[in-house]
Amino acid sequence: MKKIKKRLLLPSFLRHNQSSKKPGQAPGTLLFTGEKRLDNVLMHLYDYDVEHLSEHDISEIDDSKPYLDSPSKTWINVCGLHDIEKLKEIWDYFNLHPLIQEDILHTQQRPKIEEYSEHMFFVLRMMSILDETGELKVEQVSIVLSQNSVLSFQEDDYPIYEPVLHRLRNAAPRLRKQGPDYLAYALIDTIVDHYMKVMEKIGNEIEELEDEILQKSDESIPEKIHALRRKLIFFRRSVWPLRDSLNSLLREESHLVHEENKIFFRDVYDHLVQIIDGIENYRDMAMGMLDMYMSQVSNKMNEVMKVLTIIATIFIPLTFIAGIYGMNFEYMPELGWKWAYPAVWGLMIVATMGMVVYFRKKDWL
Amino acid sequence: MKKIKKRLLLPSFLRHNQSSKKPGQAPGTLLFTGEKRLDNVLMHLYDYDVEHLSEHDISEIDDSKPYLDSPSKTWINVCGLHDIEKLKEIWDYFNLHPLIQEDILHTQQRPKIEEYSEHMFFVLRMMSILDETGELKVEQVSIVLSQNSVLSFQEDDYPIYEPVLHRLRNAAPRLRKQGPDYLAYALIDTIVDHYMKVMEKIGNEIEELEDEILQKSDESIPEKIHALRRKLIFFRRSVWPLRDSLNSLLREESHLVHEENKIFFRDVYDHLVQIIDGIENYRDMAMGMLDMYMSQVSNKMNEVMKVLTIIATIFIPLTFIAGIYGMNFEYMPELGWKWAYPAVWGLMIVATMGMVVYFRKKDWL
Amino acid sequence: MKKIKKRLLLPSFLRHNQSSKKPGQAPGTLLFTGEKRLDNVLMHLYDYDVEHLSEHDISEIDDSKPYLDSPSKTWINVCGLHDIEKLKEIWDYFNLHPLIQEDILHTQQRPKIEEYSEHMFFVLRMMSILDETGELKVEQVSIVLSQNSVLSFQEDDYPIYEPVLHRLRNAAPRLRKQGPDYLAYALIDTIVDHYMKVMEKIGNEIEELEDEILQKSDESIPEKIHALRRKLIFFRRSVWPLRDSLNSLLREESHLVHEENKIFFRDVYDHLVQIIDGIENYRDMAMGMLDMYMSQVSNKMNEVMKVLTIIATIFIPLTFIAGIYGMNFEYMPELGWKWAYPAVWGLMIVATMGMVVYFRKKDWL
Amino acid sequence: MKKIKKRLLLPSFLRHNQSSKKPGQAPGTLLFTGEKRLDNVLMHLYDYDVEHLSEHDISEIDDSKPYLDSPSKTWINVCGLHDIEKLKEIWDYFNLHPLIQEDILHTQQRPKIEEYSEHMFFVLRMMSILDETGELKVEQVSIVLSQNSVLSFQEDDYPIYEPVLHRLRNAAPRLRKQGPDYLAYALIDTIVDHYMKVMEKIGNEIEELEDEILQKSDESIPEKIHALRRKLIFFRRSVWPLRDSLNSLLREESHLVHEENKIFFRDVYDHLVQIIDGIENYRDMAMGMLDMYMSQVSNKMNEVMKVLTIIATIFIPLTFIAGIYGMNFEYMPELGWKWAYPAVWGLMIVATMGMVVYFRKKDWL
Amino acid sequence: MKKIKKRLLLPSFLRHNQSSKKPGQAPGTLLFTGEKRLDNVLMHLYDYDVEHLSEHDISEIDDSKPYLDSPSKTWINVCGLHDIEKLKEIWDYFNLHPLIQEDILHTQQRPKIEEYSEHMFFVLRMMSILDETGELKVEQVSIVLSQNSVLSFQEDDYPIYEPVLHRLRNAAPRLRKQGPDYLAYALIDTIVDHYMKVMEKIGNEIEELEDEILQKSDESIPEKIHALRRKLIFFRRSVWPLRDSLNSLLREESHLVHEENKIFFRDVYDHLVQIIDGIENYRDMAMGMLDMYMSQVSNKMNEVMKVLTIIATIFIPLTFIAGIYGMNFEYMPELGWKWAYPAVWGLMIVATMGMVVYFRKKDWL
Repeated sequence: MKKIKKRLLLPSFLRHNQSSKKPGQAPGTLLFTGEKRLDNVLMHLYDYDVEHLSEHDISEIDDSKPYLDSPSKTWINVCGLHDIEKLKEIWDYFNLHPLIQEDILHTQQRPKIEEYSEHMFFVLRMMSILDETGELKVEQVSIVLSQNSVLSFQEDDYPIYEPVLHRLRNAAPRLRKQGPDYLAYALIDTIVDHYMKVMEKIGNEIEELEDEILQKSDESIPEKIHALRRKLIFFRRSVWPLRDSLNSLLREESHLVHEENKIFFRDVYDHLVQIIDGIENYRDMAMGMLDMYMSQVSNKMNEVMKVLTIIATIFIPLTFIAGIYGMNFEYMPELGWKWAYPAVWGLMIVATMGMVVYFRKKDWL
Repeated sequence: MKKIKKRLLLPSFLRHNQSSKKPGQAPGTLLFTGEKRLDNVLMHLYDYDVEHLSEHDISEIDDSKPYLDSPSKTWINVCGLHDIEKLKEIWDYFNLHPLIQEDILHTQQRPKIEEYSEHMFFVLRMMSILDETGELKVEQVSIVLSQNSVLSFQEDDYPIYEPVLHRLRNAAPRLRKQGPDYLAYALIDTIVDHYMKVMEKIGNEIEELEDEILQKSDESIPEKIHALRRKLIFFRRSVWPLRDSLNSLLREESHLVHEENKIFFRDVYDHLVQIIDGIENYRDMAMGMLDMYMSQVSNKMNEVMKVLTIIATIFIPLTFIAGIYGMNFEYMPELGWKWAYPAVWGLMIVATMGMVVYFRKKDWL
Repeated sequence: MKKIKKRLLLPSFLRHNQSSKKPGQAPGTLLFTGEKRLDNVLMHLYDYDVEHLSEHDISEIDDSKPYLDSPSKTWINVCGLHDIEKLKEIWDYFNLHPLIQEDILHTQQRPKIEEYSEHMFFVLRMMSILDETGELKVEQVSIVLSQNSVLSFQEDDYPIYEPVLHRLRNAAPRLRKQGPDYLAYALIDTIVDHYMKVMEKIGNEIEELEDEILQKSDESIPEKIHALRRKLIFFRRSVWPLRDSLNSLLREESHLVHEENKIFFRDVYDHLVQIIDGIENYRDMAMGMLDMYMSQVSNKMNEVMKVLTIIATIFIPLTFIAGIYGMNFEYMPELGWKWAYPAVWGLMIVATMGMVVYFRKKDWL
Repeated sequence: MKKIKKRLLLPSFLRHNQSSKKPGQAPGTLLFTGEKRLDNVLMHLYDYDVEHLSEHDISEIDDSKPYLDSPSKTWINVCGLHDIEKLKEIWDYFNLHPLIQEDILHTQQRPKIEEYSEHMFFVLRMMSILDETGELKVEQVSIVLSQNSVLSFQEDDYPIYEPVLHRLRNAAPRLRKQGPDYLAYALIDTIVDHYMKVMEKIGNEIEELEDEILQKSDESIPEKIHALRRKLIFFRRSVWPLRDSLNSLLREESHLVHEENKIFFRDVYDHLVQIIDGIENYRDMAMGMLDMYMSQVSNKMNEVMKVLTIIATIFIPLTFIAGIYGMNFEYMPELGWKWAYPAVWGLMIVATMGMVVYFRKKDWL
Repeated sequence: MKKIKKRLLLPSFLRHNQSSKKPGQAPGTLLFTGEKRLDNVLMHLYDYDVEHLSEHDISEIDDSKPYLDSPSKTWINVCGLHDIEKLKEIWDYFNLHPLIQEDILHTQQRPKIEEYSEHMFFVLRMMSILDETGELKVEQVSIVLSQNSVLSFQEDDYPIYEPVLHRLRNAAPRLRKQGPDYLAYALIDTIVDHYMKVMEKIGNEIEELEDEILQKSDESIPEKIHALRRKLIFFRRSVWPLRDSLNSLLREESHLVHEENKIFFRDVYDHLVQIIDGIENYRDMAMGMLDMYMSQVSNKMNEVMKVLTIIATIFIPLTFIAGIYGMNFEYMPELGWKWAYPAVWGLMIVATMGMVVYFRKKDWL
């Protein structure tokens, strides 16, 4: 039961069991480390320039030849990473470096940007909030930028790039006019924009957690804070390396990304900096919440102790007095006195009042 | 009720709900993310040189043409960011880069300074203490520096730049003589001076919180410290990126900011460094206060425990003795002895005194 | 008994007793600081090029002469470091710098990469999970890269490089074709891949520890977290310096590592960065778990206190009432009243109910 | 009463109420932010070279003309910053940049070193222990180094530079021979030497606090540690920026500080590094003391709880037994037995001894 | 008594009372800040080259003239720093810069390496474990490297350099052949090797402390951890600056240290990095131990509370029942019933059993 609750708190992408490649495998040994999410590998081809846009679902990579040979820009979005042979065909067709191939398949990859002689290679972690369930969906996404085309790979057919497609179809002038580097920018920007949404959701969670702590601090809160911190660790781990890579990209000369388009990559960089900033702040807040929770627990215990102490301190002496006159000695002169019983009551009332005054002074009541 | 209290502690600008742009929107898609604070977009134009100053409230940006064409310096302060069409006219008139346009509208922007081919663009977060209520007012402010003019944008018509205006009207020599880069400096300096005031206010809050902790440590203190830490996080987040941007500005060549005026920007930089320094110190102090509070709570609990322990430890054995002689056995020789009752009293007094001595030795009394 | 338990938690490689060399010994004074794990020094020689591969177990280093003189690449794997005279022969044969010799023997060496005039020297710490017992095995491994050969040293004959051998025997084209620098890369990559396995194991341990904390938090948990933190410290200490050295290697010109093979070393570097990243995250999580554990202990104590307080607060006053009417005064009118006894019961029930209502309001029940 | 105590702990210089300049004031608007400490502005003029030294108290800055015009070196020490008009005369006479003027008056200035075209400007925070009271005295000190003269400003006439004067009067060869840059060094070195004294005093305070914690940990200790931490924050804030400025000075070419004298500034720099080092260590120690205090409080509470538990656990069962035989049932056969009373005593003694054995085993006694 | 114990924990070198020079003293004012440890200043002279070695104890520095003038290398080891006049003679003979002279005497110097025109100056802190007592001995050591000689200064005649001497006497080839820079390296290496020994000892202390915490956590542990942390702070402070200085030395050109010998200094540098690494790890472990101790204290208190709660919760209700039937009302029908007494016993047994079941369920028993 506890187990189930935990599963809710820590989504599956936080599991540590990265089934990494076996030690010593040759670099370039291809092994898909994710789970199969689609039946077939799907390939969507978009061929466009300022004037026209044509879309095709192709099943063999050779079908893309006429488009790639034409001077227009070509974007091929490949969905599904489980059919290595099929992918191998595509890669060989584009002459991708073995290390690129390995990284596309290895879905626990650290986000990075690498420039090879003919390609620029981007690995990113797509994070999106599913509209229906509000759940977080994590997926590895790779983008290969060539001289005249963009190849993108994703694990399933979730429509990540819908907004870019929309602009492409609506003939957004800059997107149509600029080269494939601008398309690559647009794709990455879409992904980073999704990060913003995730940030917002985490922000809301923090607000709620703070409210919860302020109103009633039940025992599940440390767990929730712990889960939040793990989420933030995971999130930071997905964003931080991308920022670093982008920074290198901005500072270095590249023959695939034009100088004039670098300003857009700089904009993405700024967004990433802002997101990382936010993550650090959220982590600070999470620590602050834990402190607040801990001091509330202390305060509560203090209050419990006070109640016990007040009750015990008032009644224990009274019970002692009653005990005295419950003794059965034959020679206890007080027992025979007529006003003794009311006198004892009086004594008790005075003692109680003294205690109350003392506690008032101590600020306990 | 708790809820209301919290709202007082955490002002609205600390809410996380940054309504960011929708993922995948084209850069340059204009969408105002703040709240409408004015009915109309107001434009105040100031045209000045050493000799003269003329002020105009204009309603169409075309009205500024004669002033901009003249060799005198021109400053246009635009209040209100909700009427995008109006703003679009202004921007197109000044030929602003789409990314500048987007950043002006996106009011959760990270402060930064960016140089474009024709413009230098500053985004800052204005923070001021309202004189009447002592409340903190937060507003995004953008400044666009051109060859011969300064454009400034703010969300409402709060008189941020009053002191600069005052000096302009009083013909402050340096301000009137120097180019628009000096005016930009003066505007930024005014904003940074407001940060100093905010620092002072937070400093006072810390003083008060420390007094409160020393005098009586009620349970709301962790909450207050948490709110203080969030404020400091927000504040640092507003100042830190500006410092970095300014640092880059100082080290790089710029055709819009003259070498001789850089010393003034360096002065602003120094103030920002001092402010960030102060924020870090305040954060350390906030941590220190929490430690102090926590140790006070511990001390209090310790004291409560001691009272309970002293009372219980003295009376529980006495009650036991009384209980003994309250037993109803037929053959209890003591019960018949004449001096038994005073002897029991004596025993009790001795036991109590022994306890008191023990507690004295333990330093509990 | 406790002692034994600890030994299980903290494996021997975490012991601090680094029997370092005696102060003031000349650099180059050869002294083996590990434990003898083999009877004899074993030397395995592999001579290969694209066409052929020949394997030999040699007993004298002179036997390797014909292979070293041939243009094919030669790899000699030396197992066992206790027989210094034998090793000395090998080193002198290869003309190794005295500091290299010292570092090979000093098995508590900090991992590093150093370039000498004729050799490139790598010291690494091999960490592997033994398949049978799941135990962690730690061993120092040195690799000396020369113009045409690779010398590797390990403490015993554990088959670290099995996967590389496998590829060599299966004529993996790149491995056979490339120079000894690629072989060195392959050896190091194999070792780093083992780190990934270790990471995975630690990840599992963290998962289990988290489950344990959530389900029942017994008193051994802080100990376990402490042991985990020590492991992470040790692990980081083994990986961090290697990353730094590799970074230097990548940035500097080297006549032993070819530019075209640097991309592979960069891949290893990326893996190390990812591992260090993961270690930092695990350390954060360990801290988070401790916080969670501590707040659970606090919560439990709170609960214990509540039970005590509720019981004591209800029964102490009742016992007092009973004590009152157990007094033996002659003149206690209530004692003679017929309905007094049930009235006292009523009073007691009412008092109890009042208490219960009070505790409900306080949210203690 | 508490208030007074606090004032003793937190000296006035730690107050946050920095009455900074009003937002938007022109740079160069002169406003003294400290408190008036002297009636008049005092000016001490020292004119010296290898051969001679002449000292004069001048009242008008024009009186210094003959000395400044002579080739000998001139040092003017100005005491008192409240009379802005007088100061303005001096500044204008020396043609100081408006930003220098503003910084001299703004007594909450961050320490810094700035080079202007004709001057090098140093702002430092003088901290000294008053011999009589052992109190800490804080004062802002500015030094303006020109080609042939040194101008120094301080808030009152406290003899900060006494040791330098002493050496000047005793014709210390290097001081007399070297240029004004060496004098500036000597002045700064004197101030930094005072920091050493302050360090020593804080060190003694830490020793005392540690002793106090070890001997008896009364409740004022967290407060004292907090005050100590605030002092260290303030101290670091005074020293750190100076170190940074000095570092820049050492690395850059300057026409006012000669290369051959830089070694002396490097010596000052080393002292500052040592001081900052010490401050960091003191901060670590302060944290350590708090940890030690907190664990002592925990230990004490533990001990209190143990005493309570032992007493309650022994006597509560005994009282119960006594209660049993205090019941008034008519048919309680034990009451009539002759040996029942001693038997009950026996039972009680056995129970007590059992408890004692149990507590011994638990290591509570 | 507590005081004495503390003195044992915190050795005298951790005292803060650095009797620094008086503020404002001229640089070069010579004042010995340590304690006199020897009666006379001792000077040991070693003159050597590949062929010969001659050793002399000289009493006047002039006696060293013939050796210094000869082409062979000369090492003079000076023991004792209290006789400033004698030292002054030596320094003047070697023409040492006044700042060097001051630093040799000021025994609380921060370790550093400084290059002057004719000399390279090393200040180090010697730390060694005395074989007899296991105590830590701290001493400042200075080394002055000249073109053809090495001057070393130490506070007493403790044989720090024994191992170097041993190698010198045994005609270790490299030491005899290389120049004085190699000798300086050998001396420093000896000192750094002693640090390793100290590390080992601290490591053992940590092991012991961990064992102690695991077995029985008595109240002196926080104190011991605090002392350990102070030791580590002191140790780091002695090593860290040396590492930095050495790093600068390695990167800069020097006419006193030959390029070919730099590899040996790099080796020392590596050792220092390893030591600092270890210190950081020890500090982490110390923090971990404190956390572990604190959670054990919490656990213990929890256990104490549980025992109290169980006893009180079982017996308080029973005592109440006994109290009820101890009341003396005339009309209490139960008192006359024959089976009432056993029935009460039954009730009590049932209540107790219910409690036990409840505690079992709560996992308290």
